[in-house]
Amino acid sequence: MLLHLSTWQEVEVYLEQSRGIILPIGSTEQHGPTGLIGTDAICASAIARGVGEATQALVGPTINVGMALHHTAFPGTISLRPSTLILLVKDYVTCLTKVGFTKFYFINGHGGNIATLKAAFSETYAHLEDLQIPNALKVQCQVANWFMCGSVYKLAKELYGNQEGSHATPSEVALTQYVYPEAIKQAPLSTEVGTGHKIYSATDFRQRFPDGRMGSNPALATPEHGKQFYDLAVKELSNDYLEFVNAE
Amino acid sequence: MLLHLSTWQEVEVYLEQSRGIILPIGSTEQHGPTGLIGTDAICASAIARGVGEATQALVGPTINVGMALHHTAFPGTISLRPSTLILLVKDYVTCLTKVGFTKFYFINGHGGNIATLKAAFSETYAHLEDLQIPNALKVQCQVANWFMCGSVYKLAKELYGNQEGSHATPSEVALTQYVYPEAIKQAPLSTEVGTGHKIYSATDFRQRFPDGRMGSNPALATPEHGKQFYDLAVKELSNDYLEFVNAE
Amino acid sequence: MLLHLSTWQEVEVYLEQSRGIILPIGSTEQHGPTGLIGTDAICASAIARGVGEATQALVGPTINVGMALHHTAFPGTISLRPSTLILLVKDYVTCLTKVGFTKFYFINGHGGNIATLKAAFSETYAHLEDLQIPNALKVQCQVANWFMCGSVYKLAKELYGNQEGSHATPSEVALTQYVYPEAIKQAPLSTEVGTGHKIYSATDFRQRFPDGRMGSNPALATPEHGKQFYDLAVKELSNDYLEFVNAE
Amino acid sequence: MLLHLSTWQEVEVYLEQSRGIILPIGSTEQHGPTGLIGTDAICASAIARGVGEATQALVGPTINVGMALHHTAFPGTISLRPSTLILLVKDYVTCLTKVGFTKFYFINGHGGNIATLKAAFSETYAHLEDLQIPNALKVQCQVANWFMCGSVYKLAKELYGNQEGSHATPSEVALTQYVYPEAIKQAPLSTEVGTGHKIYSATDFRQRFPDGRMGSNPALATPEHGKQFYDLAVKELSNDYLEFVNAE
Amino acid sequence: MLLHLSTWQEVEVYLEQSRGIILPIGSTEQHGPTGLIGTDAICASAIARGVGEATQALVGPTINVGMALHHTAFPGTISLRPSTLILLVKDYVTCLTKVGFTKFYFINGHGGNIATLKAAFSETYAHLEDLQIPNALKVQCQVANWFMCGSVYKLAKELYGNQEGSHATPSEVALTQYVYPEAIKQAPLSTEVGTGHKIYSATDFRQRFPDGRMGSNPALATPEHGKQFYDLAVKELSNDYLEFVNAE
Amino acid sequence: MLLHLSTWQEVEVYLEQSRGIILPIGSTEQHGPTGLIGTDAICASAIARGVGEATQALVGPTINVGMALHHTAFPGTISLRPSTLILLVKDYVTCLTKVGFTKFYFINGHGGNIATLKAAFSETYAHLEDLQIPNALKVQCQVANWFMCGSVYKLAKELYGNQEGSHATPSEVALTQYVYPEAIKQAPLSTEVGTGHKIYSATDFRQRFPDGRMGSNPALATPEHGKQFYDLAVKELSNDYLEFVNAE
Repeated sequence: MLLHLSTWQEVEVYLEQSRGIILPIGSTEQHGPTGLIGTDAICASAIARGVGEATQALVGPTINVGMALHHTAFPGTISLRPSTLILLVKDYVTCLTKVGFTKFYFINGHGGNIATLKAAFSETYAHLEDLQIPNALKVQCQVANWFMCGSVYKLAKELYGNQEGSHATPSEVALTQYVYPEAIKQAPLSTEVGTGHKIYSATDFRQRFPDGRMGSNPALATPEHGKQFYDLAVKELSNDYLEFVNAE
Repeated sequence: MLLHLSTWQEVEVYLEQSRGIILPIGSTEQHGPTGLIGTDAICASAIARGVGEATQALVGPTINVGMALHHTAFPGTISLRPSTLILLVKDYVTCLTKVGFTKFYFINGHGGNIATLKAAFSETYAHLEDLQIPNALKVQCQVANWFMCGSVYKLAKELYGNQEGSHATPSEVALTQYVYPEAIKQAPLSTEVGTGHKIYSATDFRQRFPDGRMGSNPALATPEHGKQFYDLAVKELSNDYLEFVNAE
Repeated sequence: MLLHLSTWQEVEVYLEQSRGIILPIGSTEQHGPTGLIGTDAICASAIARGVGEATQALVGPTINVGMALHHTAFPGTISLRPSTLILLVKDYVTCLTKVGFTKFYFINGHGGNIATLKAAFSETYAHLEDLQIPNALKVQCQVANWFMCGSVYKLAKELYGNQEGSHATPSEVALTQYVYPEAIKQAPLSTEVGTGHKIYSATDFRQRFPDGRMGSNPALATPEHGKQFYDLAVKELSNDYLEFVNAE
Repeated sequence: MLLHLSTWQEVEVYLEQSRGIILPIGSTEQHGPTGLIGTDAICASAIARGVGEATQALVGPTINVGMALHHTAFPGTISLRPSTLILLVKDYVTCLTKVGFTKFYFINGHGGNIATLKAAFSETYAHLEDLQIPNALKVQCQVANWFMCGSVYKLAKELYGNQEGSHATPSEVALTQYVYPEAIKQAPLSTEVGTGHKIYSATDFRQRFPDGRMGSNPALATPEHGKQFYDLAVKELSNDYLEFVNAE
Repeated sequence: MLLHLSTWQEVEVYLEQSRGIILPIGSTEQHGPTGLIGTDAICASAIARGVGEATQALVGPTINVGMALHHTAFPGTISLRPSTLILLVKDYVTCLTKVGFTKFYFINGHGGNIATLKAAFSETYAHLEDLQIPNALKVQCQVANWFMCGSVYKLAKELYGNQEGSHATPSEVALTQYVYPEAIKQAPLSTEVGTGHKIYSATDFRQRFPDGRMGSNPALATPEHGKQFYDLAVKELSNDYLEFVNAE
Repeated sequence: MLLHLSTWQEVEVYLEQSRGIILPIGSTEQHGPTGLIGTDAICASAIARGVGEATQALVGPTINVGMALHHTAFPGTISLRPSTLILLVKDYVTCLTKVGFTKFYFINGHGGNIATLKAAFSETYAHLEDLQIPNALKVQCQVANWFMCGSVYKLAKELYGNQEGSHATPSEVALTQYVYPEAIKQAPLSTEVGTGHKIYSATDFRQRFPDGRMGSNPALATPEHGKQFYDLAVKELSNDYLEFVNAE
């Protein structure tokens, strides 16, 4: 059930049965010469819809822009600062808590969002307690990173080994190929790829990872792999969501 | 050209020919018993894609949640506070300015966003001047409200007269029916509908407009109307975008 | 009744009869070679006093500095950033709501304030609901732009036609001449005047409107015109205020 | 020379001779049963004009609302939070520094503003250095409290002794009587008056100082005293301003 | 009783007998060629412990970094901006108020903190009232500057006369020598020392006070003096704390 | 070399040889019935000093209060909100970057700080790039969690197995016993201890973990163990620091 394709009265009915909502969050950032700028949002969005269907859960609109400051030296990247993203999450959760939601499950497509999301959850719990909203003490937020699902990780290792890398990975590129086969890109990929560096400023990042990839070989991706990743992630996160939403 | 389906290298090439980008912004808010919660985002998104195709312009990801605080007493609404939305816009425009964009065309689906967007533009121009970014002085932001296009307005009046109302209007509902025919909703609509009241707090709003509509009769909407509105808006905004992006 | 010339006990008595307060807001910004930097504050302040006298309403102190970032490339302009002005309005309204005021009528002298004021109202309603102040749900804020009164607009068109322009207009200059006849300025006015441009950054603004006027010919202003504008605005806004304050 | 009654071209000329500006700052707060709510703004404003005339200095518009949170339990008080006032001061000084001002002389009418003003100055210096504005390193801000002038203090002691108190003092009431003789108030003053307590929250303040006075007997005030205070403050602050503006 | 060496259950017991806590606040800033960068934190911390022992009061962890923006042109200085320090104080006091503390006694080692602390207290009282925390109305914050104790000031004058100066003073250096005799520094001190200048930006400060001292001769300091200052400050502040914590 | 026991001239000399600084960060939070409230700060501080000695690195003052909102239902806990901690880190790093530091090594004693620190680093890099500080692009921040050192983790497993738990662990308690043998606490520990729950709001936390421990048995701790943990952490982090500071 997609929030954007529902009416408020349908949401009212939904709330009689469940207090949970899935919020997909991605990023708008470079993914190397062949990866889509929307990769993280596309993956989070598709998987969230799949989980929503499998679990009868309500799925909110995708947060398309996340925390990607380190990618901003590449054209096309858009990022919120962490402090802005914290406010955004606080606003989302506060609105929804006031009308009865208490379980917020963020399906996340971007590693760079994790720290800020966790900080935002802490900030939000305290804010809700301060507001003395009836449901505040029951509010629970969770970040679920599809790319860190055990089954996904295992398949990526099997298919790509070390060439999975850690950004613009063949697994995430494959998933976007499955979702948008019409947008599969071809571009020369240097055999040399930045790897093993830590992430600091945007300028530094571009120097260390000149074409945007981090140790990955996305040329290995296929739409068929993408379907496999999609199926694994949906299955694993569906179980995880149900456990989360049914826990006390 | 959709930013999310492009690579950073494609954006780099694009920037050699144009400094413009279209940013659709909607809202996630109740639209009466039969209107979709995603109405404003769906309309802005669809029209932005149409304009992008017609003008070869780059279209960024949709800002799905806007300033809808007055709708938050209805379940399913999500809103940013104005101060958060200002920061979000500032972050978006700053990132994109740094890599060379200077013309920001926000195709907007929600009247409640307009004031905050304008405030955000002022805040952003000053911020960019402070940063002394090379392109800062050339940056121009514009908000284009599809529902205020002359041709759209005229057709709405012809088709619906006073029953167009000002929220959960048949024109916007029609447009979503055209885009998502599978999500056309049926629900009883009271013949009495709140109208003529000003907008204050969320609680006050719900008291004055009990089912969420503001003077509108969305039962008049049809997908065929929706197509007409879509075509008119795309045409008018395409011209407007070209004028904007080509102006000095 | 001027708040600044009242005691707190007089305000206490006033609150037994009315919950309304008028807050004049202007700007401190260049108004061309012959317009006073305080024009917008002077006009808002004078009209607010007139409306206060006509309606027995309490008139607060003038907010002398508003949102005029686009004028800051001219010496003498002072501006708040929109985010600061939002906080200021929130602070004002919160203080006054706590002691019983619920109707806030901002008489505004500057077009550049409108968007930020509206954003501030939304932010404030939500803040007051969060605080769970008893009166919060009844709070209503309204911005009343004297220069957009129908009667004012009509007279300006009659007297000046297209030479009214949109900044440093003869109508507002006339009003300041009526209020401060000792401060009528003489300076050469170029026959060429910037017009038709949109407003972006401060530097851009000064390039497009080199002497600060926007399509106006303030040389047409006279103190006698000023009195006419004053009378019309006071009359129209007095009616509007009474309607506002008496509405549910 | 009043900024509000000047044109930007006159300011441009002024800047060739002086980099200084006087910014009056008051407060909008209860001043006991007979003191005007605008007392602090009225005093700061009048004295600033006097100093401006005596020294040919430019005088900006009065900041009518300051930091008076502890008075907000009395109706009619309006206060900025310290964090808002800091932003306001930063915005003012930043705008004026960009066009060439470097000496900011705040004539202050309210003790409660002092700490926040000093914090704001520190915040602003750092902000200006960060912006790398050419004049930033020369910027100097000073707060000049008229009521702490040696000559004023001495006269108050002579005239009123201990009955001067520390809020709603006869000296400040006298000054407002001199400026606004038409607004001299009569009201019963209890012989018991709160005194010697420290200032904490607004609610606490009202409990300790039930009618708003702090150890003062404003019934001793006369307009003639007011003129004396005015003359002394203008003289002393004029000298101080000249010293400030001429110092390296 | 040191908070950091206590358990939460011990704090729970403590709260049955006292609602007071001592919070030492210092600074991390240059103190001339022979003064320790931690001088202000060291002094505040040591005296706070002494007062805690003398009065059985709970002593919180030292706030090691304060408001020292004007010292940041010297290497080793770390400063919060005033707006950050306000948030920090608000966070501290809010946490502690929620569990029952109401008397906050800040033992302060740095003049530059005073204004911001006072601003923070005002901000905090208003915040706590907004939160409607049961104890909020009883919360009292006080800043106690050890270097402004009458007895300390008197001794400094006796020992050093004008050579006490106002920064990197022999009295504070002496106190650090008493606390850390192993860290007594030797370095040439110019006979010329900046004095009499006001404090503006960091760059300006370093120009006026080239070696960081303000009119002081810290070569006069001895550890024995330090013990005397310590004893005087502990005694005077212990009395002051008891008066504060026992007052209504 | 401790920053607090150094002079600015010594720091100036240090900067000729190294651009690195160690910043210990802890927390002030409940650690169960026998754990010290300062545990995380004590551990971070002690280990940071050890690493500083072993590597000749400069060690800044300890950040005693971190992000511990989830512990605030226990008396004695003090926490910054994540948004405050982000500003604090930004202020620290900005000050130090301006005078030449580029390598910031945060030795962290509290798991709850990690997410916010990472968010703060991202925010800070972007801020420094915006300021166009010469060194900005070289700035690198790293968080080093002593309790996640491989050698520490291994020893904890060997000594305590599952009774290590995840908060108020015997390993951290042991370390504080080693540092403060005079503050070893005795208190009854229930054999039932909350475990396996996720962390949400403060109130929820206290319900799930009634005495503050998370699955741990701190009664197993001894000062001798503490010394072992100390030695291992200092050794491992010294190597890590040197690698960090010497990396490009």
